[in-house]
Amino acid sequence: MVTNQQAAEMLADYDKDDIKIATVCSHSSLQIFDGARKEGFDTIGIAVGERPKFYDAYPKGKPDEFIVVDEYEDIIDKAGEMRDKNAIVVPHGSFVEYMGSDKFKDLEVPTFGNRNVLDWESNRNKEREWLTSAGVEMPGIIEDPEDIDQPVLVKYHGAKGGRGFFIAKNYTDFKLGIDRDQEYHIQEYIMGTRYYMHYFFSPIKQEGYQMDRGVLEMLSIDRRDESNIDEMYKLGSQEELRKMMIFPSFVVTGNVPVVLRESLLPKVFEMGEKVVDRAYELFGGLYGSFCLETIVTEDLDFKVFEISSRIVAGTNPFISGSPYSELMEENLSTGRRIAREIKLGIERDELDKIIT
Amino acid sequence: MVTNQQAAEMLADYDKDDIKIATVCSHSSLQIFDGARKEGFDTIGIAVGERPKFYDAYPKGKPDEFIVVDEYEDIIDKAGEMRDKNAIVVPHGSFVEYMGSDKFKDLEVPTFGNRNVLDWESNRNKEREWLTSAGVEMPGIIEDPEDIDQPVLVKYHGAKGGRGFFIAKNYTDFKLGIDRDQEYHIQEYIMGTRYYMHYFFSPIKQEGYQMDRGVLEMLSIDRRDESNIDEMYKLGSQEELRKMMIFPSFVVTGNVPVVLRESLLPKVFEMGEKVVDRAYELFGGLYGSFCLETIVTEDLDFKVFEISSRIVAGTNPFISGSPYSELMEENLSTGRRIAREIKLGIERDELDKIIT
Amino acid sequence: MVTNQQAAEMLADYDKDDIKIATVCSHSSLQIFDGARKEGFDTIGIAVGERPKFYDAYPKGKPDEFIVVDEYEDIIDKAGEMRDKNAIVVPHGSFVEYMGSDKFKDLEVPTFGNRNVLDWESNRNKEREWLTSAGVEMPGIIEDPEDIDQPVLVKYHGAKGGRGFFIAKNYTDFKLGIDRDQEYHIQEYIMGTRYYMHYFFSPIKQEGYQMDRGVLEMLSIDRRDESNIDEMYKLGSQEELRKMMIFPSFVVTGNVPVVLRESLLPKVFEMGEKVVDRAYELFGGLYGSFCLETIVTEDLDFKVFEISSRIVAGTNPFISGSPYSELMEENLSTGRRIAREIKLGIERDELDKIIT
Repeated sequence: MVTNQQAAEMLADYDKDDIKIATVCSHSSLQIFDGARKEGFDTIGIAVGERPKFYDAYPKGKPDEFIVVDEYEDIIDKAGEMRDKNAIVVPHGSFVEYMGSDKFKDLEVPTFGNRNVLDWESNRNKEREWLTSAGVEMPGIIEDPEDIDQPVLVKYHGAKGGRGFFIAKNYTDFKLGIDRDQEYHIQEYIMGTRYYMHYFFSPIKQEGYQMDRGVLEMLSIDRRDESNIDEMYKLGSQEELRKMMIFPSFVVTGNVPVVLRESLLPKVFEMGEKVVDRAYELFGGLYGSFCLETIVTEDLDFKVFEISSRIVAGTNPFISGSPYSELMEENLSTGRRIAREIKLGIERDELDKIIT
Repeated sequence: MVTNQQAAEMLADYDKDDIKIATVCSHSSLQIFDGARKEGFDTIGIAVGERPKFYDAYPKGKPDEFIVVDEYEDIIDKAGEMRDKNAIVVPHGSFVEYMGSDKFKDLEVPTFGNRNVLDWESNRNKEREWLTSAGVEMPGIIEDPEDIDQPVLVKYHGAKGGRGFFIAKNYTDFKLGIDRDQEYHIQEYIMGTRYYMHYFFSPIKQEGYQMDRGVLEMLSIDRRDESNIDEMYKLGSQEELRKMMIFPSFVVTGNVPVVLRESLLPKVFEMGEKVVDRAYELFGGLYGSFCLETIVTEDLDFKVFEISSRIVAGTNPFISGSPYSELMEENLSTGRRIAREIKLGIERDELDKIIT
Repeated sequence: MVTNQQAAEMLADYDKDDIKIATVCSHSSLQIFDGARKEGFDTIGIAVGERPKFYDAYPKGKPDEFIVVDEYEDIIDKAGEMRDKNAIVVPHGSFVEYMGSDKFKDLEVPTFGNRNVLDWESNRNKEREWLTSAGVEMPGIIEDPEDIDQPVLVKYHGAKGGRGFFIAKNYTDFKLGIDRDQEYHIQEYIMGTRYYMHYFFSPIKQEGYQMDRGVLEMLSIDRRDESNIDEMYKLGSQEELRKMMIFPSFVVTGNVPVVLRESLLPKVFEMGEKVVDRAYELFGGLYGSFCLETIVTEDLDFKVFEISSRIVAGTNPFISGSPYSELMEENLSTGRRIAREIKLGIERDELDKIIT
């Protein structure tokens, strides 16, 4: 893995007046490029396969130049070229997932955020250890399938992009549904409404919601669209459809903007604080964008079912600002906030606190 | 109750160049404070328990000063302090609900809107009398449970925040579900899509949609998120879940922005007109913000199931404007519209028409 | 039908410095009038029945003048008056549907877009021929009801505004549900999430996403609200409700804003390209606004179930811009984009390419 020390050395050679922001052409790249341009940065689009044409339709979100590779894993070979261009890489979900977090850790280009988080995020047990030891509530785990006495979600390990889950209401459901050739874990099925909160933690900004090590922000909230579960009910009930061998899937296809009951905001910030503080204790910090993926129960409790430690695609509805970020300043997306942080890091000569 | 005369006398002592806008730190307070600031007012946040920290993350929505009380009912003791600061109180749903409408009526501070509406709004029978005599359609009432021959909603009296309802499809369901120790009423279950329309009625503004006593506006529309009913279908059908003793609840957790089929706008304004006109006949008027909570049936009829006679949290997605308010002017939230009305009242020396 | 030649002759007589934009007062008219005003055009509202009052509440979306007719079909008699005013008609869904596409084709006023598309769009077989021969995937057709071996949607011909569909999961369902007195067709029921993409094709703009004959844009995406299907699950499962003779309906009542997974954007533009190119081959082109109504499956494939060849009401949430159009320029609605195109056509003397 590229160490913080190595990242700092790479940065030392950079021309700070000509930093470029680079990311992979997918996921939230339009927003990242748009935000970078608004803050005065040139941008590099890393395209896998071919230079995508759709950016031509969105001039503000189009990178200034492209680096084209055949496969995600070939990105690693472009590190030298990127460093020559003074590139700082902004990772997003698809970037890390498709390149592979191990490869990503070895990418010899300064990257925004803490790469150490990857070890904690990509392993379900360590993720749970981090979040629960921080004091955040998660859905309970059922160790023994025979103990299933309430609805549960069975998740196969390595399940990605919303596939590889199933719902069981009892042990019989479990036995009928399980593929024992795959590793899985069983968690309590939480009833409620989902909110994906888009946080930002800055160890270098001065004003705002103060924590020991910096300031915490929450810029926007979305809810994910999932195919086919979202509209499945229109065809019939889960129970009847199962008889026809039609099963739910949870593939993310898009996002809708939401706002949260205002009285829950104190809890939102407290959760963010706990997760950030614990990250500093465990692995050197969580800085930049992150997202807590939560369910709000009928008792108005949050259950966190996942954390994403970088920009999520759920920020895309808010490319020109959200009902939350508008209370900070006009026209502030998460993509722009990232570029702003890098700019601030350059101005204050504190890039080492936000780049690894 | 504070009378209009008393409110006018309090206002007479106010320094009109130093009016402050005050509300309780919850519900839609970020929007109210942001809107007040945009119109040039200083603001006071009434905090229950402790000074909330989350405002530090949202500088535009942060009040200029705080008044901290231990309990909601203690707000009444801060009336003198608020009057000394030339405060006008803007009530919202949580403010009135948690303080209690009786206490709120006695709060000796000038408040935005008509306090007389509280008697009509907090009593289900009077609310129904008001709305139906205005000519607005509501879901039908079933007096005798044995007459249930269609799906119904059984609502316990005093049900708040979305709890205390249940659905019955027939008399058997009713008998199985009912808690006879609580008072309840039974209303027709209306099938359709929900729209919460955010109106504003001004008795002092000159231009716009003209009525006898002023102008009517409709600034935005939302739909409420409710836990756990919204996503319950993902686990199974109502019928199957009931067998597992899992029942729906209707606790509001957030809001999503929506727009309505344009051809329904004439009906939207007609409904607003009727409700306002009838309010003037019955109890001296409905001015400022109000919300009709409706279901649009497959025949494109509106059924109004509730009215809120002040700013609702459903306006929160629109802190920088909605697809409707943008057609009035840029960047106009309901919170800002309220501050604008108070400013206009000061300029025209007509605060007595909008403050009680 | 008014030919392109005839439309060009009408335009030849127009005072190009005093062009007005006219549409029927419904559907997306607020947006069309607002967009026209932003581009400097005066506007004419064609009102059926009476001059609508609700525009008074929305000054930016209010037409400069009204032409009032008794019935939709009387619009045809106002052609001379409209031509005298140098009016260009912008058709929308309700305009064409309620006037009737045959009448609309005969309206002797220059109209935005290609009137030839109406023959292909209003006939389900020709629409399918167009789209599938373009290379776009549609839900499969089941010719013989006895072949139903999966969930299907049975659509009666002439079904409008979301009525006249039913879902059958097998041949028995079909037999129980079908009204054999009506013409119908049976299509595969596609599971997934719906996205309604709002495209714009310009044969005269120079910069952007290049195609052989012009540039393609995608300005926004919505999802439709439908009564009563959307919230029907709250009462019970389809199967149980059917026993109570409660059936789903699909009447459009409003729209919610959505964004799509960014990695699907290349497909979105490819679909748009194919549909436009094929339209030029078949009937002289598809220019201006159009909408592909799609379902995204769990395999991230698009199935197109319908095309609308003009502005759709789903653009209404984006009257001040969308997460997509903001990447083109600020404050760009589809209504404004239409007016911009007409302005460009005037400036370049190329109105004949966009008006028929």
